[in-house]
Amino acid sequence: MRTSIATVSLSGALTEKLTAAARAGFDGVEVFENDLLASPLAPEEIRARCADLGLSIDLYQPMRDIEAVPQDEFRRNLRRAEHKFRLMERLGADTVLVCSSVSPLAVDDDALAAFHLRRLAELADGFGIRVAYEALAWGRHVSTYDHAWRIVEAADHPALGTCLDSFHILARSSDPKDVEGIADIPGEKIFFLQLADAPLMAMDVLQWSRHYRCFPGQGGFDIAGLVRQVIKAGYQGPLSLEVFNDVFRQAEAGPTAVDAQRSLLVLQESVGLTAPPAPVVPTGIAFAELVSPDVEPVSELLEALGFARTARHRGKPVDLWQQGEARVLLNTGPGARRDGTQLAAVGLESPDPAGAARRAESLLAPVLPRRRTPEDVPLDAVAAPDGTELFFCATGRPGLPDWTRDFEPVGQPAPADGGIRRIDHLALTQPWHQFDEAALFHRSVLGLGALESVDVADPYGLLRSRAVTNADGSVRIALGVGPAPSADDGDRAQHIALATDDLVAAARRFRAAGGRLLTIPANYYDDLAAKYEFEEGELETYRELGILYDRDADGAFRHCYTETIGRVFFELVQRDAGYRGYGAQNAPVRLAAQHVRRPVR
Amino acid sequence: MRTSIATVSLSGALTEKLTAAARAGFDGVEVFENDLLASPLAPEEIRARCADLGLSIDLYQPMRDIEAVPQDEFRRNLRRAEHKFRLMERLGADTVLVCSSVSPLAVDDDALAAFHLRRLAELADGFGIRVAYEALAWGRHVSTYDHAWRIVEAADHPALGTCLDSFHILARSSDPKDVEGIADIPGEKIFFLQLADAPLMAMDVLQWSRHYRCFPGQGGFDIAGLVRQVIKAGYQGPLSLEVFNDVFRQAEAGPTAVDAQRSLLVLQESVGLTAPPAPVVPTGIAFAELVSPDVEPVSELLEALGFARTARHRGKPVDLWQQGEARVLLNTGPGARRDGTQLAAVGLESPDPAGAARRAESLLAPVLPRRRTPEDVPLDAVAAPDGTELFFCATGRPGLPDWTRDFEPVGQPAPADGGIRRIDHLALTQPWHQFDEAALFHRSVLGLGALESVDVADPYGLLRSRAVTNADGSVRIALGVGPAPSADDGDRAQHIALATDDLVAAARRFRAAGGRLLTIPANYYDDLAAKYEFEEGELETYRELGILYDRDADGAFRHCYTETIGRVFFELVQRDAGYRGYGAQNAPVRLAAQHVRRPVR
Repeated sequence: MRTSIATVSLSGALTEKLTAAARAGFDGVEVFENDLLASPLAPEEIRARCADLGLSIDLYQPMRDIEAVPQDEFRRNLRRAEHKFRLMERLGADTVLVCSSVSPLAVDDDALAAFHLRRLAELADGFGIRVAYEALAWGRHVSTYDHAWRIVEAADHPALGTCLDSFHILARSSDPKDVEGIADIPGEKIFFLQLADAPLMAMDVLQWSRHYRCFPGQGGFDIAGLVRQVIKAGYQGPLSLEVFNDVFRQAEAGPTAVDAQRSLLVLQESVGLTAPPAPVVPTGIAFAELVSPDVEPVSELLEALGFARTARHRGKPVDLWQQGEARVLLNTGPGARRDGTQLAAVGLESPDPAGAARRAESLLAPVLPRRRTPEDVPLDAVAAPDGTELFFCATGRPGLPDWTRDFEPVGQPAPADGGIRRIDHLALTQPWHQFDEAALFHRSVLGLGALESVDVADPYGLLRSRAVTNADGSVRIALGVGPAPSADDGDRAQHIALATDDLVAAARRFRAAGGRLLTIPANYYDDLAAKYEFEEGELETYRELGILYDRDADGAFRHCYTETIGRVFFELVQRDAGYRGYGAQNAPVRLAAQHVRRPVR
Repeated sequence: MRTSIATVSLSGALTEKLTAAARAGFDGVEVFENDLLASPLAPEEIRARCADLGLSIDLYQPMRDIEAVPQDEFRRNLRRAEHKFRLMERLGADTVLVCSSVSPLAVDDDALAAFHLRRLAELADGFGIRVAYEALAWGRHVSTYDHAWRIVEAADHPALGTCLDSFHILARSSDPKDVEGIADIPGEKIFFLQLADAPLMAMDVLQWSRHYRCFPGQGGFDIAGLVRQVIKAGYQGPLSLEVFNDVFRQAEAGPTAVDAQRSLLVLQESVGLTAPPAPVVPTGIAFAELVSPDVEPVSELLEALGFARTARHRGKPVDLWQQGEARVLLNTGPGARRDGTQLAAVGLESPDPAGAARRAESLLAPVLPRRRTPEDVPLDAVAAPDGTELFFCATGRPGLPDWTRDFEPVGQPAPADGGIRRIDHLALTQPWHQFDEAALFHRSVLGLGALESVDVADPYGLLRSRAVTNADGSVRIALGVGPAPSADDGDRAQHIALATDDLVAAARRFRAAGGRLLTIPANYYDDLAAKYEFEEGELETYRELGILYDRDADGAFRHCYTETIGRVFFELVQRDAGYRGYGAQNAPVRLAAQHVRRPVR
């Protein structure tokens, strides 16, 4: 289906919005009246700009408080409408959105509403314009899609149809039965379909609508279920996004438009309209790649953790450090992102690397050059929304190019068992504007599942965190974000969590090798003693080593932290089979302890 | 009454919070458990730090999910409680907060709840500790203050009392009758009183409570009405602030603690507990002072607006520009805040400047040096939360020192009528963390009234604006704030709105004198034509001059804008007597037009 986006969903001047929409592949736009009013371009110039960009103007919106009002008021409304129809002629827009009235003057009289809308449609028809009538969830007398449709039906004019808006419908009811009536509306009378998702919130619906809408798949609504009914009805118009969101208003229009288009690609797949390459779910983390301006401190830390430098890249200053199935690449080459040590790339073990890359490309993930030098093993890679490079790769699998063949052994064998078995999870800080999109990206592009997001108190503000994982937990990525956009986004920590079967032994070994563990306050252990019963000496050991402890119904989680280099630190974790979390309830204590070592802001 | 503040209300490490609370004049603190857990200080050290700072520890909190649970669970709860009582002994805290249970294990059995709380109180009593039981608004079975009190009464133990929390009480009901029952609780059984205000919002009460609480007077609750009942009951404990707020979590602890203490000073005055110097409401704007590194562009702009340079300060490089009753000081001296042209000070016409300053000082406004050089007329001045200097002054009033005597006439007389009569309003951008406090400051310190805050769409994010005024509108200040903390806070515009009786003439004169008015898009005027009927030629004149138009039930508002110098621009306004707004609905168009002239971000 054709795709469209309301200009109000993107930030900036009208021309910026149009350019961003066109570049992201939208077929058309809804022109939001305020964007037009604020633009120095005449309607004819906007029309020409859209034509140049290959965009149709699918809707002009909104017209408000038209129907079921006293006669004098309606006369003024028709005068106002005629002005707007002339404007739409100049703009080349043939459909106008009319929202159900919120005017205190409006009366509860469906027959009068139908009469007025018919009069409006007659006027519009003379300009070749169609009127799409939509029920606002907070409309004074008309607030449901079926009520709006009954009025349209009664008005019975070919230039009058209805507009369906997923927010207004799903904010009022999440019962799938309540949207089934959509399929009974004649498809040609559904003049327009506006789509917005939203997080499930118990709050005033108008505030919810104006500030918290998001793109399909970023929130909690069953948009796909609604769209299926609209398709069943025979709707032929575009899928159009109308999203009011305080965060998107501040974000750059270009990336937001790409995220928006991706959400519609995923939606169309989910309702069976398209069949892009299927997701190839990663089966493990092949490696984590650190870039660093200085090899020394990171090497020392890896050595103390029991890693051995087993190989070096044949063509680049990249070392492979290994222990068990945990692999860390240390890249000290020149690069664009060399502002300190950071986690720059993740190797995802894939049963079909090329297929995974095709999936990512079809969902608008920027594809990175596949081969850096002619000798390199071809590697499929894309960029995640936060800029992290995701490599789809295979480690020692027959029939697939093995990324490790780019590396030349340097003599040191990988330790048979240094205590670390594999990477348990990675924690990646997201740009503030990208947090909701990051989860949708990882779900749709990589086929991972997303857990609920959790709030964590840092001494200087609330953080949010949301994990994405595959089914068996062999790939876990915790996506985090700070409390608000700030200049020090680049300072926020990332970390690599390493799995061990015996955390106490691993921590002791690390310390014996000269490593320093984050000091956890004694008060924390007094609290643990109040909460849980431990074996004799157990708690004293945790206190000595700075080990944190959590427990859920299915098992326990023990973890401790190294010092931070640049943006990066390591976590050592021992996870009982059933435990599914990340020790979030310990995070405030850990964050406070990390602040102790940092300069005061 | 004694004042106290919960450590969770302030940002930073525990020691930062304690220092900020003590400096702001609090008598005590509530220690929030998570702050203690995250602190490297032992309980004894925290106790000593508090003693050094002159702070008592009035409450340890919270203890959760204690009562009305199965026997095994209750046994574990007592074990946990005993640990905490030992901790409180070390801390020197003698009162613990117990919140009504939210546990799925809790049963709806008041007798069992009373029995359990009595057992807990008996245990506490052995440590010299008192238990204060509070109803959470979302408690599983106990969610109202009177229900919690009935259980406390039934438990009947001297070490058990109730804790009242204004948020939990007022979030459930705004009916003054519903708090009257408080006066019937024996005062000695009200062990503690926690105060928080909140903006009136229709949203999930738990989210509302955890993220949007604010200090008394910053929100919409009738905190004073509640406190009157508590006093009537005979409560002897402290007034304690417990505020969970996402913004305060990011703000510096020091200023937040001062704002917090100010809110309690105002509250105590409003319930008649104290009588600080009464507010002296300003009767006009005596002057607006611009600081600028370059005299030329600002002087040119003032000249084009019809101002004359009438006088110069006797001791400093400050010029007085005047027209009608509008006075602008242009300060080009060296100063701490010389990063471009900005509005640095406001002169408020005051019938009692010294009294106004005493009021401000009693409410913790930083007092500025009264006399800069021995020759200067003594001027009373304080700093507003955003750093703007507020001078309380008199212009040509018998018996009061006249600030204009510091200025030496330079020969040019003030134009009799250049079209500008006076300053209509000032618009001051607030630091993000100070927006709610700014309104409380201007209300309580200056005795101004605050209007509702409004959201305004800028192309790059939502802005908020809230006006404070005196009764006759001769002092109007619009407090604004951007969408989120950002590096370019310093770039946000401030403006001076000048009142004229004939905007068209004033605008024409300005242009004839070489001034440039902000260009408003033609589309805006097409929309005006659709909305309103104008006299012939009226709209064409507005379009030609870039005049914006608004109308409410009582009158019309016409306004236009100059270009921006540094952070500052001027607005020319013609306000019908009845019109009370600021043309907020035109702000998006104005903001977009101003962005056109700025570099793209």
